[in-house]
Formats: sequence, structure tokens, C-alpha cells
Amino acid sequence: MSEAAQTLDGWYCLHDFRTVDWSAWKLLSNDEREAAINEFLGLLEKWGVAQDAEQGSHALYSITGQKADFMMMILRPTMEELTEIELEFNKTTLAEFTIPAYSYVSVVELSNYLAGESNEDPYQNPHVRARLYPKLPEAKYACFYPMDKRRQGNDNWYMLSMEERRDMMKSHGLIGRSYAGKVKQIITGSVGFDDYEWGVTLFAEDVLQFKKLVYEMRFDEVSARYGEFGSFFVGNILSTSKLNDYFSV
Amino acid sequence: MSEAAQTLDGWYCLHDFRTVDWSAWKLLSNDEREAAINEFLGLLEKWGVAQDAEQGSHALYSITGQKADFMMMILRPTMEELTEIELEFNKTTLAEFTIPAYSYVSVVELSNYLAGESNEDPYQNPHVRARLYPKLPEAKYACFYPMDKRRQGNDNWYMLSMEERRDMMKSHGLIGRSYAGKVKQIITGSVGFDDYEWGVTLFAEDVLQFKKLVYEMRFDEVSARYGEFGSFFVGNILSTSKLNDYFSV
Amino acid sequence: MSEAAQTLDGWYCLHDFRTVDWSAWKLLSNDEREAAINEFLGLLEKWGVAQDAEQGSHALYSITGQKADFMMMILRPTMEELTEIELEFNKTTLAEFTIPAYSYVSVVELSNYLAGESNEDPYQNPHVRARLYPKLPEAKYACFYPMDKRRQGNDNWYMLSMEERRDMMKSHGLIGRSYAGKVKQIITGSVGFDDYEWGVTLFAEDVLQFKKLVYEMRFDEVSARYGEFGSFFVGNILSTSKLNDYFSV
Amino acid sequence: MSEAAQTLDGWYCLHDFRTVDWSAWKLLSNDEREAAINEFLGLLEKWGVAQDAEQGSHALYSITGQKADFMMMILRPTMEELTEIELEFNKTTLAEFTIPAYSYVSVVELSNYLAGESNEDPYQNPHVRARLYPKLPEAKYACFYPMDKRRQGNDNWYMLSMEERRDMMKSHGLIGRSYAGKVKQIITGSVGFDDYEWGVTLFAEDVLQFKKLVYEMRFDEVSARYGEFGSFFVGNILSTSKLNDYFSV
Amino acid sequence: MSEAAQTLDGWYCLHDFRTVDWSAWKLLSNDEREAAINEFLGLLEKWGVAQDAEQGSHALYSITGQKADFMMMILRPTMEELTEIELEFNKTTLAEFTIPAYSYVSVVELSNYLAGESNEDPYQNPHVRARLYPKLPEAKYACFYPMDKRRQGNDNWYMLSMEERRDMMKSHGLIGRSYAGKVKQIITGSVGFDDYEWGVTLFAEDVLQFKKLVYEMRFDEVSARYGEFGSFFVGNILSTSKLNDYFSV
Repeated sequence: MSEAAQTLDGWYCLHDFRTVDWSAWKLLSNDEREAAINEFLGLLEKWGVAQDAEQGSHALYSITGQKADFMMMILRPTMEELTEIELEFNKTTLAEFTIPAYSYVSVVELSNYLAGESNEDPYQNPHVRARLYPKLPEAKYACFYPMDKRRQGNDNWYMLSMEERRDMMKSHGLIGRSYAGKVKQIITGSVGFDDYEWGVTLFAEDVLQFKKLVYEMRFDEVSARYGEFGSFFVGNILSTSKLNDYFSV
Repeated sequence: MSEAAQTLDGWYCLHDFRTVDWSAWKLLSNDEREAAINEFLGLLEKWGVAQDAEQGSHALYSITGQKADFMMMILRPTMEELTEIELEFNKTTLAEFTIPAYSYVSVVELSNYLAGESNEDPYQNPHVRARLYPKLPEAKYACFYPMDKRRQGNDNWYMLSMEERRDMMKSHGLIGRSYAGKVKQIITGSVGFDDYEWGVTLFAEDVLQFKKLVYEMRFDEVSARYGEFGSFFVGNILSTSKLNDYFSV
Repeated sequence: MSEAAQTLDGWYCLHDFRTVDWSAWKLLSNDEREAAINEFLGLLEKWGVAQDAEQGSHALYSITGQKADFMMMILRPTMEELTEIELEFNKTTLAEFTIPAYSYVSVVELSNYLAGESNEDPYQNPHVRARLYPKLPEAKYACFYPMDKRRQGNDNWYMLSMEERRDMMKSHGLIGRSYAGKVKQIITGSVGFDDYEWGVTLFAEDVLQFKKLVYEMRFDEVSARYGEFGSFFVGNILSTSKLNDYFSV
Repeated sequence: MSEAAQTLDGWYCLHDFRTVDWSAWKLLSNDEREAAINEFLGLLEKWGVAQDAEQGSHALYSITGQKADFMMMILRPTMEELTEIELEFNKTTLAEFTIPAYSYVSVVELSNYLAGESNEDPYQNPHVRARLYPKLPEAKYACFYPMDKRRQGNDNWYMLSMEERRDMMKSHGLIGRSYAGKVKQIITGSVGFDDYEWGVTLFAEDVLQFKKLVYEMRFDEVSARYGEFGSFFVGNILSTSKLNDYFSV
Repeated sequence: MSEAAQTLDGWYCLHDFRTVDWSAWKLLSNDEREAAINEFLGLLEKWGVAQDAEQGSHALYSITGQKADFMMMILRPTMEELTEIELEFNKTTLAEFTIPAYSYVSVVELSNYLAGESNEDPYQNPHVRARLYPKLPEAKYACFYPMDKRRQGNDNWYMLSMEERRDMMKSHGLIGRSYAGKVKQIITGSVGFDDYEWGVTLFAEDVLQFKKLVYEMRFDEVSARYGEFGSFFVGNILSTSKLNDYFSV
């Protein structure tokens, strides 16, 4: 039996992708649409209060292409809160005019492959805390994809020794770090929660950096031999101030 | 030909995942919604009578993310009863406002890999009976996923000798046991009944234990080389007392 | 080139799985529902006449879980009759309230791997005829799944010699025979007709025997290395006398 | 780099599978249905004129099972004509009552693996022309399936030498030829046009010959090691004279 | 770690495939349909202004077969503009009568495998610029497919050395170049943007050249061992002047 990597786990995370039913939305009167948007803005305000209180964070991005129209990414201290938030959104008027497109359930995770050997409680380390309980950036672009580590014939990540995995993750991490300042990564673990093992959410001011980062990593053995990727979603920030424009028809 | 493992089989099991059609649900009047919920509560009461008589058990969990809104897990002494319960639910008013999202048909199963060598009839052993005919716990969180043992090139579980399989299952079981008190597992067999070979249902007060357990097991050879996993569903208990809140719009 | 196995082919077979649209069905008046059921009973009566004349056979089973609500299995001397029966059903009122869930097109088949070497025309042998043109049993439970023989890397059934295949099929057949009296199997060939190579329909009074049989076979090299399985459907007999109850809302 | 096989290419081919929305169709008045069928018959007449002028060919088959209700197979000298025919059909009243079920875009193709070494222009050879620009037979049964040549590990068709491929295709062709008079095959190439590399359309008076042919070929190395198959569709000829019956409700 | 290939990146690209809901479209009055088409023509005019100003390009093709009715291919300097164009289209009346069929998000890309070794800034080279910021041709036919480089067992593109990849890409490029004047290729990169790694869009006056090119390449080691292909879409140019005809019912 190979030694399992330990993880540090932070806030629970829901990625919720929705497609707008524009035809039905147009059938509403201006007043009805305004009311629906205001109700949603009220929800965002509530989420903002939680964010200000450092009891979670959230982000709203429009998605390019037909996979979805927009993504809500929501972080909370408990899974229960995510279920409640989703239920609350589902009961809004706006939700009646959206079609579920994809979702992902996970928890912010730091792997210990690169952990130091200090005796301190990492959950008390402010740098660690900032990464486990992050305020989501308001970047111009975001990218999301789920992924697995492969278990296939001779390419079986989970049969490697801790040392082999640690060495490869180190090289992998170096690529990530070389994009510091350009791409912010949030890794969320989803083993036991959703269909892939991890979710990766990237934020950047220049969308091309997503392609450069993911492509460079693909030549790294961790991805080349052991990475299995799900669907990729990319899009633009949908700030509260633009919501009225976004939904105006 | 490799020797087939013997199993002990208990109650039949239906996992039934549903998504609520909130838009249609809102079109009902308060009275109509109340009547629909009461009708469903009546069904739950009937199921409760069976549970009290130790003629089955059931649990209701809301599901996080878009895969489903809630899961009904139902155990009964015969497959026929499951078919009837499903039919009865399908004819309720509430069912008109739900969309089938996923289901799984199986039977509670104990594998004999770890069986003792006594001559007693295991079906008379109270500890075995408690596991074959379990009362489902009212845990805060539940997790469900179906799985197969892989038959792929050199990783073919069914071509291994009984000894090899028994040794691996022993190590696998040790991980499970190390979560005793934290995660309750119910394994159900579905060969010949549904598309995977087993269903795994986990219950815990701390949802993170699902991730820890499944992740730790993934490094175990049984999972690393031989596990094939379907979709993972996770969610919160939906107790009867909260049903009115859950469905109120 | 490996030698192709010869087959004996009997009646053509259509498995037709349907899901009931209960919401729409409830919108009908009692009279309309009664008329729809009576029209369907008339169809079943017609099918019964063909069965009595040994010009085919049919069976009706409800299905457990969300894959379908019920299955019609229909045998006829020609493929054309199956197409016509399906068309006739599709034009009934009841069909308007069902949603196609799955179907399978095949022909009853006996493989000659285990054939004796006599010179008789097997199509004249009464035992063979009884298996090629069977009257479907009225068993309490039925199970259906389609399957392929694998052609993957070193596990390529179609590259094996006739001898290797015959030896493995012999061992495989022994398992099947050990369930005689408990499980009745009807093998139908579908190469060139549908997406898998065979359909397997099992009938039993005890549903657990399906699991025992399929699980035991899975350890047999034929299945372990060479079996690829599609979806499994399991359910209860839906006898004509219970149709009114089944559809009453 | 392996040498690419040369092909001779004839008429472009569209297989268009449709499912009838019988519930909606029944809502029409007799007159409306009659008008819709007459409009479709007018289209078929137009297609017949093209066929008589040897500017294409077409066939109409009902399909057994739920994959589709009927298939239109249409051959034309240009791809543009196929797009136009599809558009014209889509605008008919009948099309409003059909649901697209599957389609396949290809071009009639003869591979040169078995070509003679003459210097003649094959496109002038009457035997070749008859196969590149065929009049579709009015056979009792038709079968369609798309296929690829496998590129997987050691079973990579496109890495074989021209000689290896030619030898295997020769043996493969012999099986096909042994069905001469029983099964007519039309091979259409779809590399660059649709998701598989070839479409295979078979015609026969005895539907069992499809199963015999495809099954026998499966033991041939070309199929056993290198064949990847899509969905199989099988059905009965739907002659113009039977269209009124087919659509009468 | 294998050395990542560098790329030059030009305009962002959206392929947007739509299916027309002809039944609903017919329910409009002539005036309503005319207004909807005129609104869409207005959009195309706006896109034309951007194209004339060399701030993007676009093309409209009808698609053969049921995968979609038409494709809009749109190039813009920023991803944000693509999101906005998509949103604008979604809000038109015509969009209400189309069903999203497929989309692809990418960026025009030149790989540096074949780059010279000059010190010049390639983004200033007019030949490079013409390829990074192309005006889409008005060819009679277009073809689109997404693709990956395989990472499977011994066929793992990303584990090859830069030299091996460069040599293979050189041979691959020679095939492409031998189609110069017959097929115009636009390669777009989509790592981090969409589910495959590249999109390939081909333009030709003779649709058969797509098949010849893709088939010839399939025998090239780059494709034979390392190519994984998604769906293929093929169709005819849908010029503005034909839009009224296309949508007239």
C-alpha cells in the first residue's frame, strides 16, 4: 500500500454553472425582470456580508461558448451552507429562467507534498489560512476544470511511492509558481464529493495565461502521464454593476 | 477459473435521486403544495411503520450541486416491494414536480473475504443480521457512489486468485475500520441488478471524513489498481421536520 | 483468420423499455385512461393469439429504478413483424403517455460451441426447437443486459482459436447449467442488429439468483477477460390482471 | 510514415434517421395529415426524377427499435445538394412531426487495396461507375453502421505497411464476396465529414444475412483487431405505396 | 520534463453551432420572420465593420446532417468581445428560434516547431500577422473538428522530446503544404479554454479535399499514433445574400 498524501482542507466550494433561457426571460415585463434581478442582487448582497465577515467568498463570471452562460463560485465554512445557498438560489425568480448546466462540489485543499517539517499547526499559519479561506479575486478572466490523477496500466499515480509523487509535484509546482502574479490558482479537492478528484480554478487579467500555464504543465510528467482532464470553462468577470446590462433584453 | 467470493445478502436497496422542478412547483397554490407535501409525509409515515417493524429502512438526504435535489434511499426485504414503493411515489402529486436524476438498484451485501471459519449460520448471527438488515443512521451527511472492480489488461480483479483478493480486501477493510465511529459504510451488491457491481453509501457527522476515507483508500491497491468509480453524490440529511421548509417557496 | 462459430437462429426479438409520463397520464379522465388500457389489453390479446399459435411469444415486466417503468419483450418469426408490432404500439393511446427508454433488437441464438457431431438437422430437433422458438416463462423476476466479447489488446476473443473459445465456453456453460431450475436464460444474438453482440434475458422466481449467476460467471475467464457489459435492467412480472392496478392513478 | 490508401469517390451520401412524434401527429386533422404526406410524396417524386436521370438515388426504410422510426438514405453528385435536400425536408410539414435521431455524412468510396494495375481511368470503367454512382436497391431489409479502423496500442491500423493492410483487406473482401447475391454492400467514406471513418450500408432480402456477414467478419483480423463500430440500425423497406399506411393513425 | 513547444497566438475564436427550430419559426408571421432576419443581418453588418477595420473576421456556414443547421465562426482581438458577441446574438429574436448545438472556444495559433531561428519579433512579420489575424475565406465548403494529442500508454505525445515532436510535425506539415491552394487551414489552440487541445478549421472549394487531406494525414505518425479527434462538422457557405432564402418557409 502506497502512502496517502495528507491534505489541509479549508472552505467548501460550489461551482454552479447556469444557462439563461433568454426566450422565456424576454416574455417577462420590464418590471418583472427588474424584480427578478433585484432579488438576485439581494442574494449577492447577503453573500457579500458573509464575505466581509470572512465567512466565505463568492465570484460571478460569464462563460464563453455554449457550455453555460454564467458561473457562480461560492465558498463557505460548511457543506451544509452550500446546499442551503443552492436551495435559496433555486427558489428565486431568476432561477426559473436558468437551466442547470454543470456544477462541482469540492473543498479548498492544500496538499502536503511540499509541506515543511515544522511542528506548528498549519491551520494557525496565516499564509496557510489565507489560502484555505481565500477571498476570491476580482480578476478579469476565470477558468475552471476538474481533473483526476490517472490509474491506467503503467501510468498509475496511486501506485507510485510518496517520494516519486513528491518529486513530480515539486516540478509541477515550480511551473505554477513561475506564473505568480499572472495566474492565481485555487485547488479544491473533491474525492468523495464529485466525479473528479480535484477542481482547478484559475484567475488572470490576461486570458492567454491560462492557455500558457495549462499547456506548459501538460509537458510535465505529472500531467503528461498522470493527468486526466474534464471539461474546461472559461469566461469574464460579471461584476454586480454589469448585471443589469447582462440581463437587459 | 478463479474462485468466486461468496456473499451474504440482506435487504434490497433502491437509491432514487430526484430534481425538483421549482418553476412548476411555484405555479401551485399554497394549498396544493401543502396537500402534495402532506401526501408525501403520509408515504414517509408508512415507510416509518415498516422501519419500526424492522421490515426495512429509509433515509432522505438533500444533494449538493446540480446532480439532484434529493435522494431517497429505501431498504426492503424483497425487490418487489421496492418496485411497488417506486410506483407509489411516482403516482404522488409531489412526483409530478420532480425529475428523475439517477437511481441505483442493489442489495445489502457482506463479502466473505474476511469471514471467520465457524460453522454457524451467519444469517442467525446478530452482528451479521444487524449489518444485513440495517436501520439507516440519521447522520448529518451522506455520500453515495457506485463502483466496479476493474478488468483491464494486467489489472483484472476477476483473474486474481482468492488468496490475492482476500489479502488485498483485508488491507482495504483495515482502512474502513480505522474510520469506525466517524464513517458508517453500507455496501450493496448490484451485479445483475444495475450498471456497476457495487454501491457504496457512507454516513458521517463530518462531511470531510468522506473525502479522507475515499482518498486514503485510493492509495490502497484494491482501489488504485482495481477500482472503477461512477458518479459521487453528497448531501445533507433532510429530516421530516424540515420538509415543509425545504419545499416552501 | 480465426474460425467463426456457427449459430442456430430462431425467433426475432424486440426488448422495448418504456417510462410512463405519469403527470400527463393523470390529466386524462378515468374513461380515457380506461379506454387506453383496454386498447393495450386488446394488443396483448392479439399477441396472445400469436403465442397460442406458436407464432411468437411475449412478456411484460415492470422495471425497478429510473431506467424504465416497464419492458415489453416480444418474439416473432420475422423482423418485419417486430417492426410492425412496434409501429402498432406507437400508435396506441397508451404510447402517447410513455417515453422510449431503451430497446434492443436481436434474434434467439444457440451457439454451436457445445454442439454434438450428429448429422441431424438441428432445426428439426425438438429440444433445439424449444429453445429457438421459446414460450417466454411467467417468472416472478426478469433481468436483461446486452454484452460484447472484448477485443482489447491481449484480451481479444475474436483472435482466439476455435478450440480456446470452445473450452472457455464449455466452462462458462457449466455455470449456467448449475443454475438449471433456478434461472432460465435466453440468449439472443444482435451482431449487425444492435449495438452489442448479444442480449441476455434471465428469468427467475428468486431475484437474488440473477446476482449469484452473473457474479459467479464474472470470475470465469470468458467473462473476466472477455466480457463487456451494457446496462442491466431488472424487474417484476407485470401480469395482465395487474395492468389496471399498475396504471390506476 | 505509412503509405495512404488511394480511394475512388462517387456520390455524396446522407443517412438521415428520424423519430415520429406520434402524439403531435395525431393532433392533426385527417386533412392536415394527408396534406403533409402528400407534400412528402412530392419530395420523393422529385428525388425519383433525379434518380431516373442518374443524378442520385435514395431509399426509405423503417427502423426496428427505438433508435429511430425511419431512415432516409440519399445520394447526390455534390455535398451541396445534400445540404439543400436536408433543408428542404426540414421545412416540410412532416418534418415538424419528426425528431432528428441520427445522421451520417459520407461519400461512396471504393478503396484501391484490391485495384488492378491497369492504366485505364477507373472513373471511366462501367463496373466502377456502377459502384460509385449506384442506384440503391429496393431490398426488403437494410442495415447501417459507422466504423473506424482502430489506432490503439499495438492494434494501430494506420501504422501498418501498405502490404499488411492489403493482405488483410483481401481476406476481408473474400468474406464479403462470399455473400454476393445475398447481401449488397455500399461503403461510404467519411473521414473529414463525420465522426467515424466509414459508413457501411447493407441490403438483403433475408435480414439474418446481416448478422451472418458481420459476425463472420468479426473473426477476420481486420475487424477483430482493427474494427471499431458505432451504432447499428436495422429495418424494413418503407415503399412509397406503404407510406399512407405507415403514417395513418 | 519535456520541453513545451512555444506558440504564437492571434485572434480569439468562437465556433458557434446552432440548430433551427423550424416548427416554432413557422409559427411566426412573415413580418416577424423578416424582422428577425433583418435584426440578424444588422448584427452581420456590425461584424462586417469590425472585419473591414481588421479588428476581427467571421464566417457563416450551413452544416450538413443533423449535428447543427449552421455555424458562426467569429474571430476577435479579445476573449471578452467573443463573450459579448455571443450574448448579443443570444438576445436576438433569431436566437429564440435556434437551439445551441455545439461551440468551441480557442485562439488562432502558430506552433513554433517549424520556426526559423531569426531574432526578429514574429508578431511584426507580415506573413505571421496574416496568419494570426486572418480574414476568413469565403470558400464554398468548410470543415471543423477539435483534436488532442494522445497521452496513452506508449503513445504519449507529451513525453516525447522536442526533437521527436519537431521531426514528426515537419512531416505532418509537408502533407498540409501539399494541399496549398486546395485547402486553407486555420489552427486554433484551446488548451485551458475548451475540452480539446486544438480546433482545426478547413476551407476548400472542393469538399472532397477535406477527406483526402485528413485521410492522408491519418497515416502520418503524428495522427496515426498521437491524434485523438472529436466530432467533424462539414458544410456549405451561407452567404448573406442567401440568408433570406435559407430562412424562408
